[in-house]
Amino acid sequence: MSKDLTIDRTPEAVESPLLIHGILESGVRSAPEQEIVYADQRRYSYRELERRVHRLAGALAACGVKPGDTVAVMDWDSHRYLEAFFAIPMMGAVLHTVNVRLSPEQILYTLNHAEDDVILVNREFLPVLEELKDRIETAKTFILLDDEGGNLDSKLDLAGEYEALLQKAPDQYDFPLLDENTRATTFYTTGTTGLPKGVYFSHRQLVLHTFAGRAALSGSGHGRFNQDDVYMPITPMFHVHAWGVPYVATLLGVKQVYPGRYVPETLLKLLLTEKVTFSHCVPTIIQMLLQAEAAKSIDLSGWKVIIGGSALPKPLAKAALARGIDIYAGYGMSETCPLISVALLTPELEKADAETQADYRSRTGRPVPMVQWRIVDTDMNDVPHDGKSQGELVLRAPWLTQGYLKDEDNSRELWRGGWMHTGDIGVIDGDGWLKITDRIKDVIKTGGEWVSSLDLEGLILQHDAVAECAVVGVPDEKWGERPVALVVKSGEVDEDAIKTLLSGYADDGVISRYGVPDRVVFVDELPRTSVGKLDKKKMRAELV
Amino acid sequence: MSKDLTIDRTPEAVESPLLIHGILESGVRSAPEQEIVYADQRRYSYRELERRVHRLAGALAACGVKPGDTVAVMDWDSHRYLEAFFAIPMMGAVLHTVNVRLSPEQILYTLNHAEDDVILVNREFLPVLEELKDRIETAKTFILLDDEGGNLDSKLDLAGEYEALLQKAPDQYDFPLLDENTRATTFYTTGTTGLPKGVYFSHRQLVLHTFAGRAALSGSGHGRFNQDDVYMPITPMFHVHAWGVPYVATLLGVKQVYPGRYVPETLLKLLLTEKVTFSHCVPTIIQMLLQAEAAKSIDLSGWKVIIGGSALPKPLAKAALARGIDIYAGYGMSETCPLISVALLTPELEKADAETQADYRSRTGRPVPMVQWRIVDTDMNDVPHDGKSQGELVLRAPWLTQGYLKDEDNSRELWRGGWMHTGDIGVIDGDGWLKITDRIKDVIKTGGEWVSSLDLEGLILQHDAVAECAVVGVPDEKWGERPVALVVKSGEVDEDAIKTLLSGYADDGVISRYGVPDRVVFVDELPRTSVGKLDKKKMRAELV
Repeated sequence: MSKDLTIDRTPEAVESPLLIHGILESGVRSAPEQEIVYADQRRYSYRELERRVHRLAGALAACGVKPGDTVAVMDWDSHRYLEAFFAIPMMGAVLHTVNVRLSPEQILYTLNHAEDDVILVNREFLPVLEELKDRIETAKTFILLDDEGGNLDSKLDLAGEYEALLQKAPDQYDFPLLDENTRATTFYTTGTTGLPKGVYFSHRQLVLHTFAGRAALSGSGHGRFNQDDVYMPITPMFHVHAWGVPYVATLLGVKQVYPGRYVPETLLKLLLTEKVTFSHCVPTIIQMLLQAEAAKSIDLSGWKVIIGGSALPKPLAKAALARGIDIYAGYGMSETCPLISVALLTPELEKADAETQADYRSRTGRPVPMVQWRIVDTDMNDVPHDGKSQGELVLRAPWLTQGYLKDEDNSRELWRGGWMHTGDIGVIDGDGWLKITDRIKDVIKTGGEWVSSLDLEGLILQHDAVAECAVVGVPDEKWGERPVALVVKSGEVDEDAIKTLLSGYADDGVISRYGVPDRVVFVDELPRTSVGKLDKKKMRAELV
Repeated sequence: MSKDLTIDRTPEAVESPLLIHGILESGVRSAPEQEIVYADQRRYSYRELERRVHRLAGALAACGVKPGDTVAVMDWDSHRYLEAFFAIPMMGAVLHTVNVRLSPEQILYTLNHAEDDVILVNREFLPVLEELKDRIETAKTFILLDDEGGNLDSKLDLAGEYEALLQKAPDQYDFPLLDENTRATTFYTTGTTGLPKGVYFSHRQLVLHTFAGRAALSGSGHGRFNQDDVYMPITPMFHVHAWGVPYVATLLGVKQVYPGRYVPETLLKLLLTEKVTFSHCVPTIIQMLLQAEAAKSIDLSGWKVIIGGSALPKPLAKAALARGIDIYAGYGMSETCPLISVALLTPELEKADAETQADYRSRTGRPVPMVQWRIVDTDMNDVPHDGKSQGELVLRAPWLTQGYLKDEDNSRELWRGGWMHTGDIGVIDGDGWLKITDRIKDVIKTGGEWVSSLDLEGLILQHDAVAECAVVGVPDEKWGERPVALVVKSGEVDEDAIKTLLSGYADDGVISRYGVPDRVVFVDELPRTSVGKLDKKKMRAELV
């Protein structure tokens, strides 16, 4: 007799689905008077947030938004964006967070590819849409976002201004009881090759990501995100939902501060006046803040900052630690919702010296709950967890994108063998710490060996007069590829000094002899993608 | 055109199911060297826990356990029980946690009703099974649990002794990738009427309960359960998985201490030697510990204790607070997995005086994330959240039992109207705090009014010479019912003193005039059910 393994359900029983609604409800219940702050423009309570989320849904419904529609947002980080994070998915619609740093042509591609029905657009980006007007295929309704509550003069037929529409909407919207697998959000990842690719996440995925994030980040000890923190993102809300942290923050019921556009002086002022204690950003931002004149007179100690987007350079970790910043790396990507690992120190490592701490804090970290990871060779065989053997990181977790939007080939390639391929190469040590050593595409194949461009960059950055650096492989007839270093100076340094430094490491066996670059090129700035990542494709193209 | 609202899945993509395996994996990864302690018998690491879970699965498989089978455990709180919490569901089998405090006839009923295939039995309960031997219908395999690693002499044909079987099993078991809706656990709830009723929970439900528990309990401020705590349950593991906290503890990676049978001297000794900081128990246990001679010389300050099972009397809360214990109520029941709410203070209330704190700490609390609750009248209409209007508490959450095992009538009654009916009457105030005022069955209907037996008990307990008390309604021709108080003395007090006390409250309008009992009966102890709850059915029967 075969036994039925799944549970019996009584016809009347409701097993509540995992919906974004529950995150908002929990936060409002636990901290109704807690504050949401938008730069120096606006300040209101969680209770008011809930009311405005209901009003936004009502306003969008009045504009014709139905379940299954896609609503795009083009805005800097704001309370409005937070409202959209909740209201749009809670209606059963899909929130498309548009990367406003893309070129107009790329923006147009994503608006049409996502089949957006409605676009909420900050006045700052209105000219872009006006220019694209005749080529926007599906979106017919445009809503203006304007801090000044501005007028509706535009070449576009604007349906109204956000605040005015909210004021006309009722306090209560009857949100539907959705299937938890309903699509909630979509956005586009721009690799260095090809067209932007759309990823997408369901209510279930976002809720589980929020709970796992809560479990990974909160608690006792350094770096933890708790009820008494004050949160300010410095990773755009259009980029992987600001790493999903606004959802974690809302579940926690903490004070949230949205800074608008990222201007160093504004960020530092908000840090000080709003007593911000928890943030996340890419390395470039923290570097910029540390170097800002205004930062010199501000006490940054105790500020907890997760660094992601690209690897946290150890010298930067040390510089931040020296200012008392509780800095550590996190890891993820657009395809992973994004949280996969954090480099929170164990209680033993918290007692270690600054050098050791900086080493661990700048690693890729250990996995958050419910993430399974492997490091595999090209045949999907596991490589040893010895801290030395390199392989590709592949993943399973309850919140990974189930494919690329309308792109079956790339979807199947992403998920080949039933594991999500990150395209990152790394090593895992005996204690379970991961360190990403390179992108598969960026690893330099020279003289029959794989040389990590990130390793070389880390070593070059140790030179006092090097501000930034990137190493790429350029084609070479004899060796396959040869490394070339691009360096931004912060003082006196020349090509020989860099080569001598690396030759020393090669003598010591830290890197392969093949790893010493043939050329060092000094540049004013490194080419970056729209989201601030090093654009190695462009570098290689320029160097050939 | 109708739009498909659910997300697309690439054929190769795996959206990891929510399995108990993930909880164990996360704990072992984050704290491999952390300790599991079994009284003064045994002590090992999380790494070893994981190995032993694999070995237990191998041992059970060798005994014939297959996916879909049910494996019962009859043990006191132990490391073995924790191993069973993981290994049995992870195999795809169902863990039946047997309430060893039930009568032999009731135990027999549950073993047969759950269709147990294998029973793991502590030597202490072997005589019970030997006696029942010929009437056990489905279980054919018995495994001995014995701290002494004892011999297999028994009227039952024992398949082996637990430790010996584990030693023979391999270090690695290949756990299946299960459907997350696979049944994981079952156990029986014994009301005061009828046969025990079986509830059941899936992997998904237990994982979500664990994450919500983690989110509700950990963080900053009083009462929180964090990585640096030391956990010891004082609610049996057979009773709603010790409220699910062993799963939360494992996810956290904290040190766990299992005390065996609950003996005050053992518990106090473990508190002291293992530096326990976090526990949960019924009110009776904390009262017993506070009164124990050995407790007088022990510093209990900082010990965090959640009280559940029955209401936390305010005087007991005050007595515990006076000893420095961070005590607060939690609420749930067998049907709810069990966690529904906790009475953690808000930051403002943490600053309040002891009297106000005791008042809030002894309420039913505020809901944990993802719980929806309503207070409704008999027609399922919501009553106002004004702190006064009484109604039945009904629930939705992702982890409520979907019915009673093989009992359609009671299942549909439990879930009538699509909400789980708790049978508890309560009030919710404007800040969202719930206070259960009574069981529907225990509320005293007299003179056309509902008088809460719990309210009366709370007032009587304020008398210095009253140790314990219960109030029940007994049939009365004229008034329908009349309240009768049963009192356990701790000093000098007589019937008149109690009546005078309550008449005073009636004069002040705190209770109805009908609420002053006609009779006060002094008893040596109050009748309780097998899980320590007041047995009001028995009291009413004895008083008529």
